[in-house]
Amino acid sequence: MKKILNDPNNYVTEMLEGLLKAHPDMLGFTGGDYHCVVRADAPIQEKVALATGGGSGHLPIFLGYVGRGLLDGCAVGDVFSSPSADQMYEVTKKINSGKGVLYLYGNYGGDIMNFDMAAEIAQIDGIEVGSILVRDDVASAPPEEADRRRGVAGLVFAYKIAGAKADQKGTLEEVKAVTLRALNNIRSIGVALSPCTVPAAGHPTFSIGEDEMEVGMGIHGEPGMRREKLQTADQIAERMTNAILADMPLTTGDRVAVMVNSLGGTPKEELYILYRKVYDLLIDKGVTIYRPYIGEYATSMEMIGASLTIFKLDDELCGLLDYPAQTPFFVQL
Amino acid sequence: MKKILNDPNNYVTEMLEGLLKAHPDMLGFTGGDYHCVVRADAPIQEKVALATGGGSGHLPIFLGYVGRGLLDGCAVGDVFSSPSADQMYEVTKKINSGKGVLYLYGNYGGDIMNFDMAAEIAQIDGIEVGSILVRDDVASAPPEEADRRRGVAGLVFAYKIAGAKADQKGTLEEVKAVTLRALNNIRSIGVALSPCTVPAAGHPTFSIGEDEMEVGMGIHGEPGMRREKLQTADQIAERMTNAILADMPLTTGDRVAVMVNSLGGTPKEELYILYRKVYDLLIDKGVTIYRPYIGEYATSMEMIGASLTIFKLDDELCGLLDYPAQTPFFVQL
Repeated sequence: MKKILNDPNNYVTEMLEGLLKAHPDMLGFTGGDYHCVVRADAPIQEKVALATGGGSGHLPIFLGYVGRGLLDGCAVGDVFSSPSADQMYEVTKKINSGKGVLYLYGNYGGDIMNFDMAAEIAQIDGIEVGSILVRDDVASAPPEEADRRRGVAGLVFAYKIAGAKADQKGTLEEVKAVTLRALNNIRSIGVALSPCTVPAAGHPTFSIGEDEMEVGMGIHGEPGMRREKLQTADQIAERMTNAILADMPLTTGDRVAVMVNSLGGTPKEELYILYRKVYDLLIDKGVTIYRPYIGEYATSMEMIGASLTIFKLDDELCGLLDYPAQTPFFVQL
Repeated sequence: MKKILNDPNNYVTEMLEGLLKAHPDMLGFTGGDYHCVVRADAPIQEKVALATGGGSGHLPIFLGYVGRGLLDGCAVGDVFSSPSADQMYEVTKKINSGKGVLYLYGNYGGDIMNFDMAAEIAQIDGIEVGSILVRDDVASAPPEEADRRRGVAGLVFAYKIAGAKADQKGTLEEVKAVTLRALNNIRSIGVALSPCTVPAAGHPTFSIGEDEMEVGMGIHGEPGMRREKLQTADQIAERMTNAILADMPLTTGDRVAVMVNSLGGTPKEELYILYRKVYDLLIDKGVTIYRPYIGEYATSMEMIGASLTIFKLDDELCGLLDYPAQTPFFVQL
């Protein structure tokens, strides 16, 4: 896997320098540290502030969702590594407008430890902090252990709902409540056809045969449910849809948002081939696709593969999903 | 290069089926052929209509720019193959509102032959047709043979300018004139680190060493200026910037739009690392970056690599670049 980089140890810092040079109208940093990315206009008065964080290598996740109608700040870690508690705290301090701060992030050990520590420090400062862990990956644990599941592309829908509710001046409790309700209705699964290469490591995260795929692969290359023979697009679409429906049944009349996400190296053409089959499967069940999201939303560097996320909606969630948003990576009118 | 597909011979048709299922509010087709993609609300009354066309495998180019403030229709060919004259003619017929149709496409033999044939048929029908070829790739021929140059990512800026001018009710002559003026100020160059695989062929388009890159590679894998040792991101950025500036000098006070585009497999992180250096080089020359575009705009399937496009602006071109646009693949507020 060949990369365009300078010193691998500067990969994230240089990426952030480029980002801040490109989008000074939308993004800034705080605490004298590029890794503490915030909205250029932070803090937004009279609004619950939303923060996320996580390792690099997943763009647009995580920092790509900092912007209007979405998040207020993001603590950025090294590739596939958690940012520090200090970085999360700096972001928290900068985005807080007195209405409270909600941490919304994926269920990974390092992130939890550091966000919890940041929350403790912030609370000593008198900043009210709430936390929500995203655990949408059905492949990462069975239903009875759903609290062990990892957060993957479903994070984007969680950001969207929380961001809209906060922008509509919901209280911290209200933003938390609707986001938790949304997360009850969000499930994802991914299929990887190739590994990716962490720049500082310089070698692929795992090896896989030319005729194999890994079903349920995590976005850091965590092992999936199983290694299988590479299937057709239709079989993969059916496989992913069924895995989600087994966990979250859908019935005639249900409305959903669907995300078909490239893990990085899969062309958009192939995402549409997948979507075609997912669409047919859902329509056959009498389910309405309220809004499709097809593209790169949460990646694993240049990994070849795709994920499917299904988000079951109600009237309030439709309204929040429709709410406009704008970041350098995500625009919805 | 592993792919998510069914029968490779159905790759484009199934992609188009997925596309039309995903975006019926924005896109439709005409002539009973999915390959003839048009705006769902075509024809737009009292507006010059814009059509493009080309092979598949480059999303978001070409069909990804059909939408409000951009193009009215696109004839879609098989992977890396021209669509037919009939398909172009069907698109032309559907989008024409009586104000004329402008063909705006890349300088490739098959596309030229077929667009010229479509224009002849349309003119027999009484439809006024103009044509503009995009030839922005400085690597594909020296300045004295600039009319042999290929069209690459600069197509996106050409669409943007023509689309805005047409939406502002410019006449066919006015849209042509401003687009030609824009194209005089648009230059691109790409660097490829890997080949890509055309689905029906099933093998990579070329081979390249683990420590090599191809400078000036075309988006179909056409040979570049030369094969070199893989350089650092900063060296690649400098190489690309200098190649463009040698062809289109910039001086203190100039304003430009800059596009750093992934050829498919290069992560967004690495595009920002490239942008960081391009920014520094231009700022050092006293050039202002009016608007950056960093992401996937014109790809070559899953090819690892990137291209740089620089577009020298004046007041009118800034205004047209800023004009809002919306397609399933491109949104600008």
